[in-house]
This record gives sequence, structure tokens and C-alpha cells, in this order.
Amino acid sequence: MKIAIIGLGKMGANMARRLCRGKIKVVGYNRSDEITRQLAEQEGLSPATSLTDAISQLASPRLVWLMLPAGDVTESYIKQLKDKLTDGDIVIDGGNANYQDSIRRGEYLKTSGIGYIDAGTSGGVWGLDNGYCLMVGGDKKDVHHLEPILKVLAPSATDGWAHVGPIGAGHFSKMIHNGIEYGMMQSYAEGFALLKNKSEFNYDLAQLTELWRHGSVVRSWLLDLSADFLKDDQELADIAPFVADSGEGRWTIDESIRQGVATPVLAMALYMRFASQNDNAYTNKILAMMRNAFGGHLLKDK
Amino acid sequence: MKIAIIGLGKMGANMARRLCRGKIKVVGYNRSDEITRQLAEQEGLSPATSLTDAISQLASPRLVWLMLPAGDVTESYIKQLKDKLTDGDIVIDGGNANYQDSIRRGEYLKTSGIGYIDAGTSGGVWGLDNGYCLMVGGDKKDVHHLEPILKVLAPSATDGWAHVGPIGAGHFSKMIHNGIEYGMMQSYAEGFALLKNKSEFNYDLAQLTELWRHGSVVRSWLLDLSADFLKDDQELADIAPFVADSGEGRWTIDESIRQGVATPVLAMALYMRFASQNDNAYTNKILAMMRNAFGGHLLKDK
Repeated sequence: MKIAIIGLGKMGANMARRLCRGKIKVVGYNRSDEITRQLAEQEGLSPATSLTDAISQLASPRLVWLMLPAGDVTESYIKQLKDKLTDGDIVIDGGNANYQDSIRRGEYLKTSGIGYIDAGTSGGVWGLDNGYCLMVGGDKKDVHHLEPILKVLAPSATDGWAHVGPIGAGHFSKMIHNGIEYGMMQSYAEGFALLKNKSEFNYDLAQLTELWRHGSVVRSWLLDLSADFLKDDQELADIAPFVADSGEGRWTIDESIRQGVATPVLAMALYMRFASQNDNAYTNKILAMMRNAFGGHLLKDK
Repeated sequence: MKIAIIGLGKMGANMARRLCRGKIKVVGYNRSDEITRQLAEQEGLSPATSLTDAISQLASPRLVWLMLPAGDVTESYIKQLKDKLTDGDIVIDGGNANYQDSIRRGEYLKTSGIGYIDAGTSGGVWGLDNGYCLMVGGDKKDVHHLEPILKVLAPSATDGWAHVGPIGAGHFSKMIHNGIEYGMMQSYAEGFALLKNKSEFNYDLAQLTELWRHGSVVRSWLLDLSADFLKDDQELADIAPFVADSGEGRWTIDESIRQGVATPVLAMALYMRFASQNDNAYTNKILAMMRNAFGGHLLKDK
């Protein structure tokens, strides 16, 4: 079994490692080639100097797994692959693409007889050791062909990967997964803040989160990670209170609007990230001015 | 080691069972005595016919663990215990009391030299087998005395129990734990609804939640439970869309107001429970009337 991985960033590189260690032959290509050479040396990956080179190292039916930034970068590779691949080959997008793009790309590649699989991939940097959770959308025969790869990437051959539906269903479910993740993270963070702020109890948040890991209703992997970083530092004096967002949270709320289904907690978790990104918010300046205007309330010194 | 448990409801009865099985001598009292007799027969618990009887079966320093409904019931037992116990005895409240009540009760019992411990207890009906997560507030010497009991109730002698702070700190941290639980539950529920509603993908939610249990970022015990009940039934046609709340969620938001700390996700999770409890909401009738008034929009048939 052989596969090309295009894009050896944090996720792609670790997935390549896991596959190499699982006795899958991996051809790797990355724009900057340092990581490719590293993986060749350390893991026995076959380095490729270009997309064309990567493809030339595969035999039919060729499997090309993309781990690229969603959007324009992925789009440009899909276009190139349409020309470079042929009938029966399969492109897998393991990135965080919008499911609507995935459906469109699946149809686009199909016109050349090229299969398409959207493999929503979760697990972060821990996936190398723990395995990745893989939500796979696509045609049955294509997914069947990919199975040996999925079984190595997943936590085990039987758990943590599944063919969840047609093309688009993989990335859609990954999108919802991430939407839920935003809500869970915000829930913990708000609770931890109330604990930290309760100075009269002088809580040891490292102790408390470690405690909750055992037998409590809120135990989870996110709690495990929190207990771990709180052990090292619970003051977080040097951490900027800025929370990035990367698309999936926004798309989840787009979808809730499309469906007309209320998801206020997921929306609020997203909005709180936006608020964190904009500490000089115009909204709050307006509010301060209104209070000043009707009540003569003093403006805070800048 | 011997302890009296007052209140043998779902939680109290299972805790008594776990203690009996852990070779702790347990005296049990419950208002209706059927469960007491059952536990006596099945687990070797010593049945008591009254609070006085329960106390008379203990030797100094006497340990009395309350597992009663928060509020008036707990309050009345605390008052009785102030008269029936003496210097050096210890009352433990394992229920979901408001931490402010716990602080007040601790001070009240202290005037008679009676110790008080607030032991926030999580784990639900699964605690019998898995052990309970115990967040313990109180004086060091009292908690030290209770240790052998805590080690049996917890998942293990070393994990899942901790002395987290002074009196009040146990119930406060349990309150925040439950507030986080509301947010996590609402996050999952909103996500599952978006998946279920995406009819074109025809998701098997049992498959997807089982999949997420392995390697995904959102894996948790709440997800384990969800995967389990979705396996049996994912249509939920016979489940009323009504979500009760039991105080802790409300107190968490009270506390956020007291602290002036924004917890919009925890608040929204609570408000969505209120909305579920009131399907004939006056708010929505007013909105329908306003739309009708300014736009002539039709009112929906009742």
C-alpha cells in the first residue's frame, strides 16, 4: 500500500510519520523541503520535489492525500490534480475544508473519473501517538480502497475511523465536531475563570482539574489537556488573552442559519473568540459614550 | 471506621453500597424505610429508625454524612444535628447545597464545636461502580479524619478526591463543575441537532458519536453516555424536549454576576433549559404580535 501526502505541516508531517511507522509506503511533498528531507531520513518517507514527482512515484490507482490550508491553496492543488491524475485515482482531502467546497470538488474531479474522499481529521498534535479520529465521506468503493490507510491512521484498526456518508459528509461532521469543541472549550474556560477569581478559596486549579479527571461528569480529553498545562502554570501571566478561530466555528454558525436551528451556545463561543481578538472594540466605546451621554457617567482613562 | 448516611435516595443509597463493599461500617437512615431494609439485607448496612437512632449507633467522634435535597430538608437536619451531636463530631454535606449556605452552616455548627465538611459529589448513578469525584471543603483535621471514607468512595485511594479549600470551597467547586456541565451538554446537543437535521447526509448518530470517542478532540464521558443511548434510539420520538434544572446552574450565573465575570455560554445553556421548560413562552407570543402589528405578518394557527 502506497500513498502520497501533499502538505507536511504539523498535521501532515505527523500523519506521514504514523503511516511510515505502520508499514505504509509514503511519498511526501511539501512546498519547503526541509521537513520532507527530515521525514525521509527519520521515517523512510520517499521525498518528492514536486506534485508531479509525487504522482510519478505512485502506481494506479493512485492515492493522493492533501493536508493543506483550506481555501485557495487546496483549490489550486485540486485543479492541478484534475490534470495530473486519471480515471480510478483517488484524491483525499484531510484538511478542514468547507463541506460545500468538498461536494463541488468531488463533482469536479468526477468529470475525469477521479474519486474524491473528504476525510475530516481530528486529534491535533497528539494524533501521532494516539491515532487520528477520521470522519470519512465518499463513495463506498473509494473508501474501501483507502481502508488500509485509515486503519493505520486511526487509534486502532476498528475504532476511530468510519465511513459516515457521501462526499461532503466527512467535512460536515468535522465542522460540527469543531463547533462543539468551541462550546466545550468556552464552557471550561468560563468555569475556570469563576474559580480563579474566587480569591477567598485560593483554589489550586491544577489540583481541581486533576481531581475532576477522575469520576466527575465533566471529565474529557480537553480537561486532561487543561490539567496538564495548569500543572506547569496556572497564573498564565505571560499568555495573551487572544483566541484565534480558523473557519470551522464560523461555518457551523452559517449552517445553523441555513437550517434555522438555534445554536446559541456554539454561536456565543464563536463570538467570545471574536471579542478576544478585538480588545479595543468599537462596540464598547459606543456603549461608554452612550452612558456618558444620558447619565454623565465618566469615561475610563485610556 | 463507621459512618452514618442520612438520606438513601439514588445517590445516598449507592454511596452506602460502595462504602459497605469497601469494608466501611455504615449506619443508614431514610425517611421511608424500604431502601434501608434493602441495604441492610443486601449490603450489611445497619438500619436506623430515626436520626437519633442513627447517631446512637456511632462512637465519638461521630461522622454523619447527609445526602439530602438541598435547601429546607438539609437545613432542618443541620438544626437537629446541632442539638444531637457534640464537640468533635463531624457533619458532612454531600448534597448539592449552595456554598453560601454551607459556610453559614459550618459557622453555626462550630458554635457547638461540631465540625462541618462540604463534600461536592459528582458521578451520578455510575458512581457505585466507577467511584465518586469528591471536592472536599473543610478544616484540615476534620478532612483528615474523613480520609478513609473518601478513599473508598473515590475511584481510587489516590485519585478523584481532594481537600480543595476551606468550608464552602467544596460546594463552590461542585457548583462550577455543574455550570460547566450545562455548557458542555448544550454544546453537544446543539451540534447533534445540526447533524440530525442534515437529512441529505442521513447520518447515523450512533456511529458518529462512537467514532468521536476515539482520538477526537471532543471525547468525554458525556460523549460516552451519548453514544450509548444513541445506540438504542437516535430518533428520540418518545422523549419530551424538556430539560429540568436543579439549582447549581442558576447559582453559577448568580456567582458570575457577583464577580462581574462574563460567562455567556454557561448563562445561555441555563436559559436554553428555561426555554425548554416553557414551550408556550409569552416572549414568543409578544414577538408574533409585534410582527403582526408592524408588518401584518400572519399569526401561526395554534
